[in-house]
Amino acid sequence: MPELAAVNGRVSPIDQAKISINDRGLVFGDGVYEVIASYRGKLFLFDEHLARLRRSLDAIRLDYVAIEPIAEQIQQLYKRAELPRAKIYLQVTRGTAPRDHAFPAPRPKPNVIITVREVHEIDPAKLEHGVACITYRDTRWGRVDVKTTNLLPNCLAKQEALDRGCFDAIFVADDGVAREATSANLFVAANKEIWTHPTDEHILPGITRAILIKRAPEKGIVVREEKFTKDFMIAADEAFVTGTTTEVLPITRIDGQPVGNGQPGPAAKTMRELLTEWVTKYAG
Amino acid sequence: MPELAAVNGRVSPIDQAKISINDRGLVFGDGVYEVIASYRGKLFLFDEHLARLRRSLDAIRLDYVAIEPIAEQIQQLYKRAELPRAKIYLQVTRGTAPRDHAFPAPRPKPNVIITVREVHEIDPAKLEHGVACITYRDTRWGRVDVKTTNLLPNCLAKQEALDRGCFDAIFVADDGVAREATSANLFVAANKEIWTHPTDEHILPGITRAILIKRAPEKGIVVREEKFTKDFMIAADEAFVTGTTTEVLPITRIDGQPVGNGQPGPAAKTMRELLTEWVTKYAG
Repeated sequence: MPELAAVNGRVSPIDQAKISINDRGLVFGDGVYEVIASYRGKLFLFDEHLARLRRSLDAIRLDYVAIEPIAEQIQQLYKRAELPRAKIYLQVTRGTAPRDHAFPAPRPKPNVIITVREVHEIDPAKLEHGVACITYRDTRWGRVDVKTTNLLPNCLAKQEALDRGCFDAIFVADDGVAREATSANLFVAANKEIWTHPTDEHILPGITRAILIKRAPEKGIVVREEKFTKDFMIAADEAFVTGTTTEVLPITRIDGQPVGNGQPGPAAKTMRELLTEWVTKYAG
Repeated sequence: MPELAAVNGRVSPIDQAKISINDRGLVFGDGVYEVIASYRGKLFLFDEHLARLRRSLDAIRLDYVAIEPIAEQIQQLYKRAELPRAKIYLQVTRGTAPRDHAFPAPRPKPNVIITVREVHEIDPAKLEHGVACITYRDTRWGRVDVKTTNLLPNCLAKQEALDRGCFDAIFVADDGVAREATSANLFVAANKEIWTHPTDEHILPGITRAILIKRAPEKGIVVREEKFTKDFMIAADEAFVTGTTTEVLPITRIDGQPVGNGQPGPAAKTMRELLTEWVTKYAG
């Protein structure tokens, strides 16, 4: 059950896979990506990820890149890797060309990089006790709804959190609005309601976020897609983050202060059950 | 006189040079770069570029990366390429590691990528008549003073300019302040004074910009490092951009409107002469 890479269809072990130093993803961050999880041999919410990929490609003017052959390559590599529980990373760049900010002409073929890796499941202690987060000034660019590889501020924020003994950082705008974590969406529960930042240019439209919002009413929960501040979040009953590999993870401390009673609460638990049920429906 | 690449000291033709798909520059834009010009066999303002590299590395917490061995590699590759008039591209990334936003531990060796390419001199017609620019909303991240490879918005803006029959785009903040072009600093001349955006987190501290500001008094010109708006710029007598490969280039139209009388003016001419004199002093 090997971890594998495919670069433009050429399959190899990941550490042998290489790309030109003229790749525009390397030189300019000129590309987009997706991370897809599999459960029990099935790619979870694959169509949703492909739809978001389409949206990202269109947003950076790679509208001419066809999704179907990429989907086919992902399926083939995933099958070949024989990893029932995997995370699939896909990166599509504008291709290889001598360095110039302008798009290359004639248009090069996009570079398509895929890896299939084992998932390291979330530490059960983190699920049981929740995690601590810091807040971090959101200095990311103005289109983080597009899933590009311009991710340096996310890396710096994540590392800052770790250095301060925390698990992750929550980006907070200069107007005090709490947006999302470095690679996961943010929810809070307050007054028996669940809140999350609306989809606009300042958060990633998470696939897990979307399915939880859609299915929450089945559990008698309505999620309000509205902005809330850092202060609101810290004063809330619960906070949690969601994502493809994060799944649903309770946040129990923010900037050293407990959220609610400092323990994971029922809203995060219900949302986690909802996700698990959906995985079961999907993957059996 | 070949164009050459060196990846961690391994020299090859540029199109054969490759890097791991796990390089953090590719995956996260987790790295910094410099572009250095040579004239008549000398690397122009090399120490100034190395000082800025030091600053960039420190800003993204690559403070442990030593400059001296990189400078040595650049000198060696430049010598080997035998290109008296070259542009040297240097990219330093946090190294190769499985994808994780957090910094890898243990710390990998940084990847050092260098290319030496021929310079395509600026079209004399552009110098004679000036170029047209568009303005473009500045949605870049909040630390563009650090020379990172998170450059997708710069690419999108540059291409938008070309698509609209112009040469480049000028980033304008939501408060109307004109900042810089996609890979060059911006100056305007108004009321016999020259203005340029002060060095803060919203512009790159250009090497050419700095030397022009420093030397301008020798020509009886004082440059004011102050913010100015898009409207101020369009109403100005002259506008021009400066950079390592751009040198000094007059802008004669912005958003379809002529700047001043629509012709290159004396301020841009003087600044260009100043740069040329300095190149001569430096490179003989």
